[in-house]
Amino acid sequence: MAGSTYGNIFRISTWGESHGKALGVVVDGCPAGLSLNEDDIQMYLDKRKPGQSDFSTKRNEGDKVQILSGIFEGRTTGTPISLIIFNEDQKSKDYGNIAYTYRPGHADFCFDEKYGFRDYRGGGRSSGRETIGRVAAGAIAAKILKELGITITSYVRSIGPYEIDYDHFDIEEINRNSLYMPDKACAEKASAYLRELMSNKDSSGSCVECIATGLPIGIGEPVFDKLDARLAQAIMSIGAVKAVEIGDGVAVSSAVGSGNNDCFQVKDEKIVKITNHSGGTLGGMSDGAPLILRASFKPTPSIYQEQLTVTSSKEEVSMSIKGRHDPIIGPRAVVVVEAMTALTILDLMMCGACARLDNLKKIYN
Amino acid sequence: MAGSTYGNIFRISTWGESHGKALGVVVDGCPAGLSLNEDDIQMYLDKRKPGQSDFSTKRNEGDKVQILSGIFEGRTTGTPISLIIFNEDQKSKDYGNIAYTYRPGHADFCFDEKYGFRDYRGGGRSSGRETIGRVAAGAIAAKILKELGITITSYVRSIGPYEIDYDHFDIEEINRNSLYMPDKACAEKASAYLRELMSNKDSSGSCVECIATGLPIGIGEPVFDKLDARLAQAIMSIGAVKAVEIGDGVAVSSAVGSGNNDCFQVKDEKIVKITNHSGGTLGGMSDGAPLILRASFKPTPSIYQEQLTVTSSKEEVSMSIKGRHDPIIGPRAVVVVEAMTALTILDLMMCGACARLDNLKKIYN
Amino acid sequence: MAGSTYGNIFRISTWGESHGKALGVVVDGCPAGLSLNEDDIQMYLDKRKPGQSDFSTKRNEGDKVQILSGIFEGRTTGTPISLIIFNEDQKSKDYGNIAYTYRPGHADFCFDEKYGFRDYRGGGRSSGRETIGRVAAGAIAAKILKELGITITSYVRSIGPYEIDYDHFDIEEINRNSLYMPDKACAEKASAYLRELMSNKDSSGSCVECIATGLPIGIGEPVFDKLDARLAQAIMSIGAVKAVEIGDGVAVSSAVGSGNNDCFQVKDEKIVKITNHSGGTLGGMSDGAPLILRASFKPTPSIYQEQLTVTSSKEEVSMSIKGRHDPIIGPRAVVVVEAMTALTILDLMMCGACARLDNLKKIYN
Amino acid sequence: MAGSTYGNIFRISTWGESHGKALGVVVDGCPAGLSLNEDDIQMYLDKRKPGQSDFSTKRNEGDKVQILSGIFEGRTTGTPISLIIFNEDQKSKDYGNIAYTYRPGHADFCFDEKYGFRDYRGGGRSSGRETIGRVAAGAIAAKILKELGITITSYVRSIGPYEIDYDHFDIEEINRNSLYMPDKACAEKASAYLRELMSNKDSSGSCVECIATGLPIGIGEPVFDKLDARLAQAIMSIGAVKAVEIGDGVAVSSAVGSGNNDCFQVKDEKIVKITNHSGGTLGGMSDGAPLILRASFKPTPSIYQEQLTVTSSKEEVSMSIKGRHDPIIGPRAVVVVEAMTALTILDLMMCGACARLDNLKKIYN
Repeated sequence: MAGSTYGNIFRISTWGESHGKALGVVVDGCPAGLSLNEDDIQMYLDKRKPGQSDFSTKRNEGDKVQILSGIFEGRTTGTPISLIIFNEDQKSKDYGNIAYTYRPGHADFCFDEKYGFRDYRGGGRSSGRETIGRVAAGAIAAKILKELGITITSYVRSIGPYEIDYDHFDIEEINRNSLYMPDKACAEKASAYLRELMSNKDSSGSCVECIATGLPIGIGEPVFDKLDARLAQAIMSIGAVKAVEIGDGVAVSSAVGSGNNDCFQVKDEKIVKITNHSGGTLGGMSDGAPLILRASFKPTPSIYQEQLTVTSSKEEVSMSIKGRHDPIIGPRAVVVVEAMTALTILDLMMCGACARLDNLKKIYN
Repeated sequence: MAGSTYGNIFRISTWGESHGKALGVVVDGCPAGLSLNEDDIQMYLDKRKPGQSDFSTKRNEGDKVQILSGIFEGRTTGTPISLIIFNEDQKSKDYGNIAYTYRPGHADFCFDEKYGFRDYRGGGRSSGRETIGRVAAGAIAAKILKELGITITSYVRSIGPYEIDYDHFDIEEINRNSLYMPDKACAEKASAYLRELMSNKDSSGSCVECIATGLPIGIGEPVFDKLDARLAQAIMSIGAVKAVEIGDGVAVSSAVGSGNNDCFQVKDEKIVKITNHSGGTLGGMSDGAPLILRASFKPTPSIYQEQLTVTSSKEEVSMSIKGRHDPIIGPRAVVVVEAMTALTILDLMMCGACARLDNLKKIYN
Repeated sequence: MAGSTYGNIFRISTWGESHGKALGVVVDGCPAGLSLNEDDIQMYLDKRKPGQSDFSTKRNEGDKVQILSGIFEGRTTGTPISLIIFNEDQKSKDYGNIAYTYRPGHADFCFDEKYGFRDYRGGGRSSGRETIGRVAAGAIAAKILKELGITITSYVRSIGPYEIDYDHFDIEEINRNSLYMPDKACAEKASAYLRELMSNKDSSGSCVECIATGLPIGIGEPVFDKLDARLAQAIMSIGAVKAVEIGDGVAVSSAVGSGNNDCFQVKDEKIVKITNHSGGTLGGMSDGAPLILRASFKPTPSIYQEQLTVTSSKEEVSMSIKGRHDPIIGPRAVVVVEAMTALTILDLMMCGACARLDNLKKIYN
Repeated sequence: MAGSTYGNIFRISTWGESHGKALGVVVDGCPAGLSLNEDDIQMYLDKRKPGQSDFSTKRNEGDKVQILSGIFEGRTTGTPISLIIFNEDQKSKDYGNIAYTYRPGHADFCFDEKYGFRDYRGGGRSSGRETIGRVAAGAIAAKILKELGITITSYVRSIGPYEIDYDHFDIEEINRNSLYMPDKACAEKASAYLRELMSNKDSSGSCVECIATGLPIGIGEPVFDKLDARLAQAIMSIGAVKAVEIGDGVAVSSAVGSGNNDCFQVKDEKIVKITNHSGGTLGGMSDGAPLILRASFKPTPSIYQEQLTVTSSKEEVSMSIKGRHDPIIGPRAVVVVEAMTALTILDLMMCGACARLDNLKKIYN
C-alpha cells in the first residue's frame, strides 16, 4: 500500500533512501498565505542532523533543504510544496556483509520476505534518514500551529535508568545539552551512562516526552480518528518506538477512578480541569489542558558487539555491525516526535474545521 | 471529519448512540466467498454483552445482530455487509443531571465545545456501546484471518496491582472467569480487589494483552502504515485506552541493545528469532514471531463517589454518577481489542497484497 | 476495494440489495446543528419511488426512510447518521432464468467473473434500487447547501430524439410531467415516443441536465480533485451513465478559442463572466457562473424483446426479460444526479474550507 | 484539500509550477520487482515535450527525468519512487500583464479568489506543464500493465470539424504525424485547418480517444468506484477536458435498448460480447471487450486575439495574450490521457486484488 503518505487534508508523502541520491517530501494541502522560507525548515532539520555530539553518528551531512515548489514571493500558494535534501556523504563502501546478513533488531529480513529483495545500502528506506522528510514537513505544520497559538515542546525524559526530575525541569536546558534533557544533572548522569555503554559496545533505550499547549478544545474525532489514536499511529510509526502513552499512560492500569478522574472547575470564566491525568484528551478530543504524550524508544539495534544471526541463504553466522551509528536514538528523535505531533494536530484541525454548520457558514458566507 | 470509518480496503463504518434506536456497522470491501451467518458474529458480541457478571452493568440487552445485506446463500458476495443491533433496554429516565453537568473523566464537555450540544442520553456516541459495531465487524475479520491460519487471543493481563503470573498462564482459563484472566489465582485476587473498590464507590484500571499468531512475514508497510503504528491507532481509538505497547513496550526505554535485540537462527529450515522482545514486528512489518500488544485501560470514570465538577452554564457543583456502570473496563474490552487487532491485520494484508509484481501476476494471470 | 463509500469529509457508505431485507446509507461527517427530520429525506426519496407514472415500474414500495442515529432533538449531532429503508415488495418468485442466464447490458456476467457468484435476485447490488442510499444522503447534503445559498436543479433534457427547447424552458413544469422535462410540448412528444417504443418492447436513452447556482468561487481543488473531475466520477458512477459533460461538453472539441472563451466583465462591483461556455468551472474550480453538467443515460437494458445471450455454463440461448422495468432511466435518475451533485459540492467545500491560513484562523481563533 | 494526490494503492503525488525550479511526482505503492530505468519514463515524457511540431510551443525544454529513489539495481524496491524534471527554459521576463489581468478561459481569477493570490508565472500550477508528473508516473503504470498483458493506445480522434475515418484507421500512422491522428488524410486536413486558425490568431478544440485491451474481466468496483467512474475523474481532471465518454458515450441518449445492448455469445470457449456499445464496461466493471473512452478538449484558451477582460482591481481592459502557446491541446494531451488511464486501471486492479477470499489465499498461503 501507499505507506509513505500521512494525513488526510494536510497530507505528506516522504521518499528517499539512506544512500540514494536524495530524500524529500511533498506537502499537499498546505493552506495558502503562510510566510515560509528555507530557514524555517532548516532550523528543524538541524536538530536531527548527525555529527552534532559524542552520541550521534559521525556521518557528515549538510542536510540542506531546498524548496522546489509551492512558494511564491515568500508565501505558500496552496499548491504542493516539494522539499528536497541531497545526500552528500554516501560512502560507497563495500556493503557485502550487510547485503546478505540480517542485522538483529533491523528490518532487513522482513524487507527481503515482503519484497523479494532490498536496498541494503545503509538500511535503505528503513534508515533513520527516512525521518528527514517528516521533520521538514513537520516544520511547516509547526509554523502554522504557532500562528494559531499552539506550541509544541519535546525533550528526552529518560535514558536507561536516568529519568528527569520534574522539580528541576528547565525548559531552557533542553537545547543546551546534547541529550535534549530539561534537567542538567540528569543529563550528566545519562552521559556517563552512555559512555560506559559505548565502551561496552552497547546502546541504550530512552523515552521522549512531548507537550502541546494552546490547542482549542474539541480537536480530534470521536471513534477511530481520536486525537490520541491518530497521535498513537503517528508516533508509533517512528522507527524504534515500542510504546506510546498519553497522560498517565500505562500507570492508569493500576490507578483507581477517584484518583484518575480530572475534576472540572471554573477559572477566569473558563471551564478547566483541576488535574491532568488524561494528558489533555477526553473521548478522543482535546480538553483544554496541555496535551502530553510519551514515546519509548528501543536501544539502537546496531551495536559493535558480536551477535548471532543468519544470512539470506540460511547460514548461521555471527556478526559485529561496523560503521557509524548512535548509541541512543531518543535525542535525535526529539524533533521527529515534535514533527509527527504537529502534523497530526494540524491535519485533525483541518479535517474537523467544519464540525459545526456554523463553521461552514463562517467560511462561505 | 468522517471519524467513524476505519480501514482502507476492508473498511468499516460504525454508527449509533447508546440510547438511540439501534447501533450498527457497514463492512465495505469484504472478500466474496466467505461462509458467514449471524452466529459467527453473535458469538463475538456475546463476549461484550452487559449483565454477565458481578463486574458488568446490569443493563439488559439481548444485543442480537441482524445481517441486512451482503450475504447470499450463506456466503459473502463482496458487496457491503450491513449489521444492525437494536437497542432494547433504553431507560427513558430523566437525564437532567447528566444533560447539563459535565461528568469528570467523560467527553461531555468536549462534545459540547466541539459540536455546540450533544446527545447526553447514556453518553450518546461516546458510550461503551459504540464498540458494538467494532466487535461485529471484527468477528468477520477474525473469521477470514482464521481461514488464513491466523489466530488472535486476548485476555486481561492485570487489574490494579494484580498481574497474571506467566508461569501459571492457562489459555483455557480465560473464558472460565468473568475477568477474562488466564490465571485463576490472579483472577480471584483481582475479584476481591474489585469488590473492595466497589464498596468504596470506586473503580479500577486494567491492562489487556493480545497475541496474534500465524501472520505471514512482511505484513505492514514501512514508514507511516507500519503494522504497529496502525495497531496503535486502532487500539488507542478504543475509549479509555491511555497507552499501547508492542512487545517489551515501555520497558525498552531502560533496556540495552545487547539485551533487546532478537537474534536470528535457522529452525526447521526457516529463519526465526530466538527471542521476541520486539513483539513480532521489525521495521513495522510482521517478523514471523507472535505479535504481542498491550492496552492500558483507565479506571471507569463513572463512579458513585461525590466529585467536583461544573455545569454547562459554568456553575461549580458536586455530583455522584447514578445508574449502571462497570467498576472496570478491561474484561468487557478484551473482545474489542481482539476485534480492532483483527480488522487492522486483515486490512493491511489486503492493502499489501500486491507488494510484489509477482503477486499481481498470481492474481491476474 | 471499499467501493461503496464516497466522499472524504462528508462521507457516505451505501449498502443493500434489490431484494434483501433493507437498503440504507451511513453518513459520516455531517456537520452538527442542522435541523433534520425524516420528511426532509422522504421528499427526495419520493421523487425516485417506483410506480409513479406509466413509465416507471409497477413495483409497490413505500420506500419509507427511518433515521436510526445521529439526530438529537431534531438536529444533527455530528455523529454518523444511519438511514434505513426496508424492502417491502420483494416478490419471492422463481429467479431461475436470471440466475443462470446473463442479461445483455447488465452486470451479471461481470459479477460472476469478479466474485465467483452473485446475488441474482432483482439485480442484487447493481439494481437501480442501489441509488436509494445516494438519494437519502444527497437530501442531507442538499439541505446543507441550501443553508449556504446553493440551489441545485435537475431535469430531463432529452429523450431519444426529443430535446427541450430552451426558449420554452419552464422550471415549474419539471415536477408537473412524469418525465421531469421543463418543456411541456417536448414532454408530450417524448411520451408518445416512449409509448411507441414500449409497444415495440424496446426502451429509450435520455439525457439529464443539472444546474447548481450560488456556489462560492473557488470550490474544487486544482489537479486531481477538480470540481468537474469529482463530479465526473460522481455522475459516471450512476448506473447506465455513459457520458458526462460540463458546460459546452463534447461541443468544445469542434469549437474555436475565440468562441469558447468566456470573457470577464465587472457587474455590480463583481467580476463575472459574460458567457458561460465553461459551465461554471475554470481550472477545476467554480468560477461564479452557474455550474452546468449533463449525463447521458443509456436505454434501459431490460427489454421484453427476445435477445441472444449465454448462460453461466456457456450455453447460447435466447431470452426475453420478464418482470417490471421502466422503458427509460432518465426521469427517475433526475434526483440521483441531483443527489450526487450535492454530495460532491458539499464534500469539496468541506475539504477545501481551510485553503487559506486566514480561514483556519477564522475557525480556531 | 490534498488535491494533487491520485490513487489509493498505487498512489501518486505530483508537484511543481510552470516556472518553478522543477516539477515532479512521488509514486507510492509501486510493486517491487519491476525492471525500471529512466529511459522507460523518458519515452513517455518525450511524447508531450514542447517544441516538436508547428503546433506546439517553442519553449525549449529538455524535460529530462531523473529517478531519485525507489530503484535498486535496476528494479523497483516497493518504496516510493521520486521523479524530478528540472525546468530549464524559464524566461524571466516581465509578467506584469498576466500578474494583474485575468486571462479568459484560464484559472487566474479562481486561484486569486480561492487562495488570495497566485503564482502567475506561466500559469503556475495550472499550466500544461503540471501534466509532466502524471505522464512520468503513468509510464510506470503502463509498464506494469504491459507485463500483465494490457495495452493502452490513444490518439487524436478529431480536430475541429475533422474526424478520423475508422475505415482508414492506421495505428502505425499515430506516431508519424505531429497531430497523433491514425488517419493520414484526416491529419492533413486538420493541419490545414489549424494553420488557418493560427493565421486568425485563434485555436481549435479536439477529441482524444483511448483504447485499452487485455483487461481481465471484473476490474472496477460496483457503485462509486466503477471503472468508468474512476476513469471519468481521471480524464476530466486533465486541464481543458469538458466531456468524458465511455463506449457510445453521448450517443446512447438517443439510442434504443435493442440497438444499444451488447449480446453475448461463446467464442473459443469464452463468453464474449458480439458488439461493444458499452465500451468495455458493464456495471462499472471491465467486461472483456476493449475499453474505449473519449475526452473532449476545449480550444487553447491562450489566443493572440484581443479579448475583453478585467484586472484583479476590477478594471475592464482588453488583452492579447503574448508568449508561446499551442493552437490545440489534444495532440500533446494524447500521452496524458494514456497515462491517466493506465494509472486508474492499475490502481483499481491493485485495490480489487482481494475481491475473492480465494485470492487472499493465493497470496498468503
